[in-house]
Amino acid sequence: MHYVNESATTPHGGETPAPPTRSARMQKTRLAITRCSRELTAEHGFSGFTIEELCSRVGISRRTFFNYFATKLDAVFGHIDDGLPAEALERFKNARPPGIEGIAPTLLADLVELVVTQLRRDEEEILSEHGFFEAVHREPELLAKMVKVGPERMNEFMALVAGREGVPVDHPGLGMIVHNIQFATHQAVQRYAASSRDSSLEAEFLNLMRHTQQLFAQPLLRD
Amino acid sequence: MHYVNESATTPHGGETPAPPTRSARMQKTRLAITRCSRELTAEHGFSGFTIEELCSRVGISRRTFFNYFATKLDAVFGHIDDGLPAEALERFKNARPPGIEGIAPTLLADLVELVVTQLRRDEEEILSEHGFFEAVHREPELLAKMVKVGPERMNEFMALVAGREGVPVDHPGLGMIVHNIQFATHQAVQRYAASSRDSSLEAEFLNLMRHTQQLFAQPLLRD
Repeated sequence: MHYVNESATTPHGGETPAPPTRSARMQKTRLAITRCSRELTAEHGFSGFTIEELCSRVGISRRTFFNYFATKLDAVFGHIDDGLPAEALERFKNARPPGIEGIAPTLLADLVELVVTQLRRDEEEILSEHGFFEAVHREPELLAKMVKVGPERMNEFMALVAGREGVPVDHPGLGMIVHNIQFATHQAVQRYAASSRDSSLEAEFLNLMRHTQQLFAQPLLRD
Repeated sequence: MHYVNESATTPHGGETPAPPTRSARMQKTRLAITRCSRELTAEHGFSGFTIEELCSRVGISRRTFFNYFATKLDAVFGHIDDGLPAEALERFKNARPPGIEGIAPTLLADLVELVVTQLRRDEEEILSEHGFFEAVHREPELLAKMVKVGPERMNEFMALVAGREGVPVDHPGLGMIVHNIQFATHQAVQRYAASSRDSSLEAEFLNLMRHTQQLFAQPLLRD
């Protein structure tokens, strides 16, 4: 099965949906390349497939591949703009209540809302992404790239949050809360993947967050 | 300068301190090997020095080295028992108030106390350790080992905490709090290393923890 169709045939009969914009189509292709390259990594290891095999799974030409990514390594880590959907980020930015100085009292809830939106996506995709990140730990080349890319993306997101709150990016609370929420998200996926799955990813995440809140409500020092 | 003296000469004149036990002497040597191997890694890169050069810096023979560690890689990561001092762990275990079911209301404070004890050690040693962990990110071989050793040690510590609290090791709150405190410790050292150092490591850590508490005290969901 191919993920994208380069020839872009128009469907016949019935109502024709508005044709996707060029940039939406491009993002769809880019996402498909990353998704397929991660699947292939999980299946065969990172050195177990060629760019040609990847192109064939995606349904694109080699030439198209290089329009999107310079290397196979770049492809598996994906484009920075594909991490969090633009609309969700926009909603997060606009959710800050007006007329407040410094950290908004809704920051935690707004970040949680952002994560929950992400966890409501296609479950199979989230679990496959998780499988890929587990594979990264077994592949030195991927691992080396991840310790470079991970902090870069974290810093970009931190800058966005700090910008929304109007505080410096090295504000002592922001780094902690953003990191903790990211960790809770990973933990939720891991626990969910290992469970009998009668709960939901979202419930798993909120449960972890509630327990964290309870423990951080304890006194920091004895007496 | 040599870190250990294999010939164990007895000091003459004045009061002779009680001779260290064999196991205390062994731990001192083991720690010196790890400390020197980390310094050499920070100075020359992990492949930039030989076991012979390491032995010469520590002041031991090759043969002694292999009594402690099987490889140079094992040496830089150190012995699992050298991570947290046994007395501090013992104090943590005994600090749980009696007559309580489940998570103690002092768990956060007791964990914080454990970290603070660690942060009051020799500052230069903590900063040199930090420099080593920064170097790990640039060395694929060390990185691959770290993603293996890190979770193993984390799990061992988690088991100790869960054992103290009498809850299963996969308790949803424990993993979050232990990870968050570990992250705050790293952050504190990083911030301190980058600062003008007119505060202290301990103050930096407590400040991060207080900010985290404040943010986690916000509501998790909007109304």
